Amino acid sequence: MAVVANKQFLLASRPEGEPKPSNFKLAQVEVKGPGEGEVLLKTLWLSLDPYMRGRMSATKSYAKPVEIGEVMVGGTVSEVIVSNHKEFKPGDIVLSYVGWREYALSNGVGLIKLDPKKAPVQTALGVLGMPGMTAYTGLLTIGQPKPKETVVVAAAAGPVGSAVGQIAKIKGARAVGIAGGKDKCDYVVKELGFDAAIDHRSPNMAATLKEACPNGIDVYFENVGGAVWDAVFPLLNDFARVPVCGIVAHYNDTTLPVGPDRTPLLMGAILRKRLTLRGFIVWDFAAQAPDFYRDMGQWLREGKIKYREDIVDGLEKAPEAFMGVLKGKNFGKQLVRVAG
Amino acid sequence: MAVVANKQFLLASRPEGEPKPSNFKLAQVEVKGPGEGEVLLKTLWLSLDPYMRGRMSATKSYAKPVEIGEVMVGGTVSEVIVSNHKEFKPGDIVLSYVGWREYALSNGVGLIKLDPKKAPVQTALGVLGMPGMTAYTGLLTIGQPKPKETVVVAAAAGPVGSAVGQIAKIKGARAVGIAGGKDKCDYVVKELGFDAAIDHRSPNMAATLKEACPNGIDVYFENVGGAVWDAVFPLLNDFARVPVCGIVAHYNDTTLPVGPDRTPLLMGAILRKRLTLRGFIVWDFAAQAPDFYRDMGQWLREGKIKYREDIVDGLEKAPEAFMGVLKGKNFGKQLVRVAG
Repeated sequence: MAVVANKQFLLASRPEGEPKPSNFKLAQVEVKGPGEGEVLLKTLWLSLDPYMRGRMSATKSYAKPVEIGEVMVGGTVSEVIVSNHKEFKPGDIVLSYVGWREYALSNGVGLIKLDPKKAPVQTALGVLGMPGMTAYTGLLTIGQPKPKETVVVAAAAGPVGSAVGQIAKIKGARAVGIAGGKDKCDYVVKELGFDAAIDHRSPNMAATLKEACPNGIDVYFENVGGAVWDAVFPLLNDFARVPVCGIVAHYNDTTLPVGPDRTPLLMGAILRKRLTLRGFIVWDFAAQAPDFYRDMGQWLREGKIKYREDIVDGLEKAPEAFMGVLKGKNFGKQLVRVAG
Repeated sequence: MAVVANKQFLLASRPEGEPKPSNFKLAQVEVKGPGEGEVLLKTLWLSLDPYMRGRMSATKSYAKPVEIGEVMVGGTVSEVIVSNHKEFKPGDIVLSYVGWREYALSNGVGLIKLDPKKAPVQTALGVLGMPGMTAYTGLLTIGQPKPKETVVVAAAAGPVGSAVGQIAKIKGARAVGIAGGKDKCDYVVKELGFDAAIDHRSPNMAATLKEACPNGIDVYFENVGGAVWDAVFPLLNDFARVPVCGIVAHYNDTTLPVGPDRTPLLMGAILRKRLTLRGFIVWDFAAQAPDFYRDMGQWLREGKIKYREDIVDGLEKAPEAFMGVLKGKNFGKQLVRVAG
């Protein structure tokens, strides 16, 4: 059994607004182990991701908060140092989730062995890990970019945004990135092959974005919110898709809603609760008419569907009846019997 | 060729806020016809629907506005009075869209013959028409209610809402309706078979709705907005679906956004542009992991996907680097090299 001195960061206090150094506490503890069926892991790489800000708050979300005094959570790549587990041997490199610490014990559950020959092991925390898969699944399942469509993503030089834009290009779409500063914008266009990049620090960001999207926006991969969302919103085309993956611009907001505008509250709920809001008009589903007539006709005959009509007589009554409809005065389907 | 005196309502002026009688002008014109290949239609039934409010405004939407001096649009059921069209004969009853008038000429395009033996012809404007199909398609395609789930709909005594709740029941879900006044609420529960009905005029509507939805809300069929949306919003469950079909409460708003809260602006755009907003986290799509590793691995090997890392050395640097991530200071995937 090994005994190692282990540095780790604990959540010392919950941040109000931006996290400060005092919210983190560096502690040193001894780790003794591994016990039977356990491995001792040495952290090689720790990933830092925006979602961690959410876990520092007590707010209910899709994952439980880190408690005060607990080790900060985080994805890691670790080396097995000592093993009492039959599946692992010293020297194995594993994807793990031990958080902000140098050493950890694990019973093996959730560990995924990595092959250093296939790709640099730390890519399991990035392009071949959670950020890459976030881009892949959100863009392809919800965004569904089609050739020639315009896909916009912010934090375009970051691990999620850069994958979103490059996958959009692979699918034949135009990719427009938003990033902070000239270096990142140059990288996004020249290195990653985006069609355009907008500096969100530019005072005329909204106008520049509009210029870069002459055909509007078909997919906006939302990971920031705030001013970028405000610039994107008026440019969204009919039938645009908005995968909502994060609203980093609001993670440090101390209260939601921010002021009287409750849009951030709504976007936050769409994210946390994974809501789907989708507008439609009936003609969008015109192809379903045969199903509708078949089912509804049958349900009516079976008495499973009842209906009620609110009838006024004479065309002259139409305006008054219509004004009543807008106030909910009708009781049942409002009809005007014009003749007969 | 017949000549008939034809009363019709024209849009006299665009309403500001609630429509007033002065926005409509009753005019009488002669209709002469039908010409070759035409039919003369006599309106039996005119449908009055909330969407007409939108068409009275100049605002761009999914359909072009009615121009000043034009006949108000609307769905109709008409009788063929005179026919010069080989497909129609006098006495035929057709679903038509001639608007607020007693007689109209048609070249037959878009007319659908109705069989009075199958169902009362005016149901083609209601339960077997656009409102019924709106409920059917929006609820089943977007809402996708599952057995035991809770479906909430407002204007529950109206043609769309009543069909939404009853179809939800057919699919095994709980149906909770919101309606104006005791008579409508009684009708919704006792006649239509909803599990509960809430009077939106009640001062404690939100609390009553919460009581009626002890397991939260899984599907909210949005057709009103306003105070109902405010009451529904906090009750939405994870993965709830919100088909957005109308925001009647806002149709008479003279300006959007209404005050500083831009939520109505967003909901209006979701409706008009038929946007899809959907929140997600990557683990919702865990089943796609094999696809992700296959595709992303291949794209990396082919050089189609590039990535960049921003590395700090030493666990001690984690808090500072993390605070930088939240401010966008990192350039590429932020990693902490803890060891190795």
